[in-house]
Amino acid sequence: MHGQPHVVIVGGGFAGLWATRALARDAVRITLVDRRNHHLFQPLLYQVATAGLSAPDIAAPLRHILRRQGNVEVRLGEVTAIDTAGRQVRLADGGVLDYDFLLLASGATHAYFGHDDWATAAPGLKTLEDALAIRRRVLLAFERAEAASDPDQRAAWLEFAVVGGGPTGVELAGTLAEIARHTLRDEFRRIDPAQARVRLIEAGPRVLSSFPESLSAKAATQLRRLGVEVVTGRPVAHIDDQGYTLELGDGRQERVPARTVLWAAGVAASPLGALLQAERDHAGRVLVGPDLSIPGRPEVFVAGDLASVRQGDRAVPGVAPAAKQMGRHVGDAIRARLASRPAPGFRYRDFGNLATIGRMAAVVDLHGLKLSGIVAWWFWLVAHVFFLIGFRNRLAVLTNWAWAYWTYQRHARIIFGPSRPRGATGDTDDTGDAPAERRR
Amino acid sequence: MHGQPHVVIVGGGFAGLWATRALARDAVRITLVDRRNHHLFQPLLYQVATAGLSAPDIAAPLRHILRRQGNVEVRLGEVTAIDTAGRQVRLADGGVLDYDFLLLASGATHAYFGHDDWATAAPGLKTLEDALAIRRRVLLAFERAEAASDPDQRAAWLEFAVVGGGPTGVELAGTLAEIARHTLRDEFRRIDPAQARVRLIEAGPRVLSSFPESLSAKAATQLRRLGVEVVTGRPVAHIDDQGYTLELGDGRQERVPARTVLWAAGVAASPLGALLQAERDHAGRVLVGPDLSIPGRPEVFVAGDLASVRQGDRAVPGVAPAAKQMGRHVGDAIRARLASRPAPGFRYRDFGNLATIGRMAAVVDLHGLKLSGIVAWWFWLVAHVFFLIGFRNRLAVLTNWAWAYWTYQRHARIIFGPSRPRGATGDTDDTGDAPAERRR
Repeated sequence: MHGQPHVVIVGGGFAGLWATRALARDAVRITLVDRRNHHLFQPLLYQVATAGLSAPDIAAPLRHILRRQGNVEVRLGEVTAIDTAGRQVRLADGGVLDYDFLLLASGATHAYFGHDDWATAAPGLKTLEDALAIRRRVLLAFERAEAASDPDQRAAWLEFAVVGGGPTGVELAGTLAEIARHTLRDEFRRIDPAQARVRLIEAGPRVLSSFPESLSAKAATQLRRLGVEVVTGRPVAHIDDQGYTLELGDGRQERVPARTVLWAAGVAASPLGALLQAERDHAGRVLVGPDLSIPGRPEVFVAGDLASVRQGDRAVPGVAPAAKQMGRHVGDAIRARLASRPAPGFRYRDFGNLATIGRMAAVVDLHGLKLSGIVAWWFWLVAHVFFLIGFRNRLAVLTNWAWAYWTYQRHARIIFGPSRPRGATGDTDDTGDAPAERRR
Repeated sequence: MHGQPHVVIVGGGFAGLWATRALARDAVRITLVDRRNHHLFQPLLYQVATAGLSAPDIAAPLRHILRRQGNVEVRLGEVTAIDTAGRQVRLADGGVLDYDFLLLASGATHAYFGHDDWATAAPGLKTLEDALAIRRRVLLAFERAEAASDPDQRAAWLEFAVVGGGPTGVELAGTLAEIARHTLRDEFRRIDPAQARVRLIEAGPRVLSSFPESLSAKAATQLRRLGVEVVTGRPVAHIDDQGYTLELGDGRQERVPARTVLWAAGVAASPLGALLQAERDHAGRVLVGPDLSIPGRPEVFVAGDLASVRQGDRAVPGVAPAAKQMGRHVGDAIRARLASRPAPGFRYRDFGNLATIGRMAAVVDLHGLKLSGIVAWWFWLVAHVFFLIGFRNRLAVLTNWAWAYWTYQRHARIIFGPSRPRGATGDTDDTGDAPAERRR
């Protein structure tokens, strides 16, 4: 068995997992390396952040998913170096993996465009830990507002802003408004959660800019109906833990006291891309050839959000279907190489674009067929639950959603870690130092 | 409304919550203070620790449980001082609560009997954070074993010990054995998880010492059948992050290299008990009078695990039914005081004793009727799911259990936080510094 070609796949997201599965029947041995033990169904991550789903609902251990695929070994580990000349991957625990083929598919992370100091004040959403941190922050904000004696402090705790009007920002803002208006109804005695203001802030002229203009407009209307204040054409000039500042143009600015700001404005490629000696684009994505290998290294592939792929005059978008297609393609390309056939060129099949907004609100663009509102929401729901990995998860998610739909309740409203609400005293560290200490 | 007597209840566990509910129709205003936002169904906590249930399955926000009880206000906060003469409770955020009646029901925590240095090496199980930390440690141990190149290190990662043969220790050991033997089957390539050794270590002569001897013997048999090595009459002399040492008698000791040791050997009362000027027993529990008030302070009550109550020649045990009964009793006592009637004496109704051991294994002692094995397990399951708070939780838990029963799978096997398996290099900090950093 050790005589078989060794394929090392870094990253158990959509690209890495689909490549692994594509090679299930081939005479190779595969090592799938991830620094986490689970595959994450990222399209539903915002539901964990907003307490609608539990973390295990949208994640499954990679080992479990792949337990019956005999030619794969799952390795929990963090890649620290790649030697493309010597064909070796080095791990933080000292492990060294020799490879015959390498797929780097370590995805993307959120980016603050040179404002890394905003990261503590405005967390982004890429991992389960991010989602739980956002959940904690949002739920604690209402607790702090209830405990605050100073009206200004109270107002700042009831002021929510989501920066970035792409799909993640739209989902977060829509769901936050639902929580404030419906989920928390009757639960507080000193504040009315429905008075919370949820603002979605987009620097560009419209939300969901990757959709046709008519659907952007419909999305904005649906957001407003859910209770979100949509602000477009206003870049954020500054964020700190007491609030944020908007550019109004002509040098004027608006300062808004707000204790909860969420970041959904940018992504950058995983830093592992820098470990390859290969050209990268402005977002750090690795430029790959038509077969997704890097120039001069036909045995090294990059796929998913880390890959910069152009199809004609358009860039292949960083969405789950594209990552799966790239992963599958890399499997095919490796098979072709092993058979000494030329590797086929990658072709992205774009089936359309979906974005959910909130309860019964979504937009769908199927290239010709445009849907919005309830119909789009059902389309989105069925598509997402259908693609969720693992039968049990699908069942659990459907149950949770049916429950949430009828009751407006969100079952995962647990704040982990003891919290000391310092209320009106102006505490700046409100996102929980405690959990880790408790964990020792 | 502010003219009504103010009842302050500290702690939203069984005692505090049941007292709150008992006063639902009385002309009082209630403030329920807890440093967490949720009520926790502690009897199923071991299932979260062993990845069978998600945290939100066994916890519900106190605000949500009490949203329709108009006379109660829920306050997230941590009590720092109690002035029984001035009838005031002080909170960490500067808040001050004046009370007419006080119920202190802040429960218990685990205790290391003077060996607090064992706490990092052998975590205990009292909170959701504890459960997630144990889950992380157990799942990572198998990952480390898989990655280890040194056979001794590998063996140490596959060596599990649970210290303490009470109900929690028995549950943890039985479930660990199930995970090793069944849940992880086929998932690893270099180790066989079924080769893991799970030892349950009890200093006394038998496990489940609060049960009749015949049931203790049955429990030990069932544990062995599940794959647990039951060690009795062997006190632990030392624990560190590389292993533990047992006293064998005659001054002899056995040193066992083990990277995963869990602590289920002792509980102590919540430190808040010390804030009352009242006599306490050796475990820190507050000695209360027949009506559960403290001597000389008829308006101050203590209930649940924090209260030391004797019933004839027996101590009322620290179990959920006793806490609920005490909570309800305090409600009755406050009502009696308000009507200038003498408060009734508390009488504990002992319906029996249940302990689960693992898949299809449990013991039940109903004072005369003794059950063990499958019948006892079903009895235990029905009783626990029935008492689980919140209809959705009950449904979710039943679904999860049905799933787990048929598939042997445990759906919550997610390790939070990136982890760097340092494998054979002898890392000592294996329980995750990362999560909190990620959360910023």
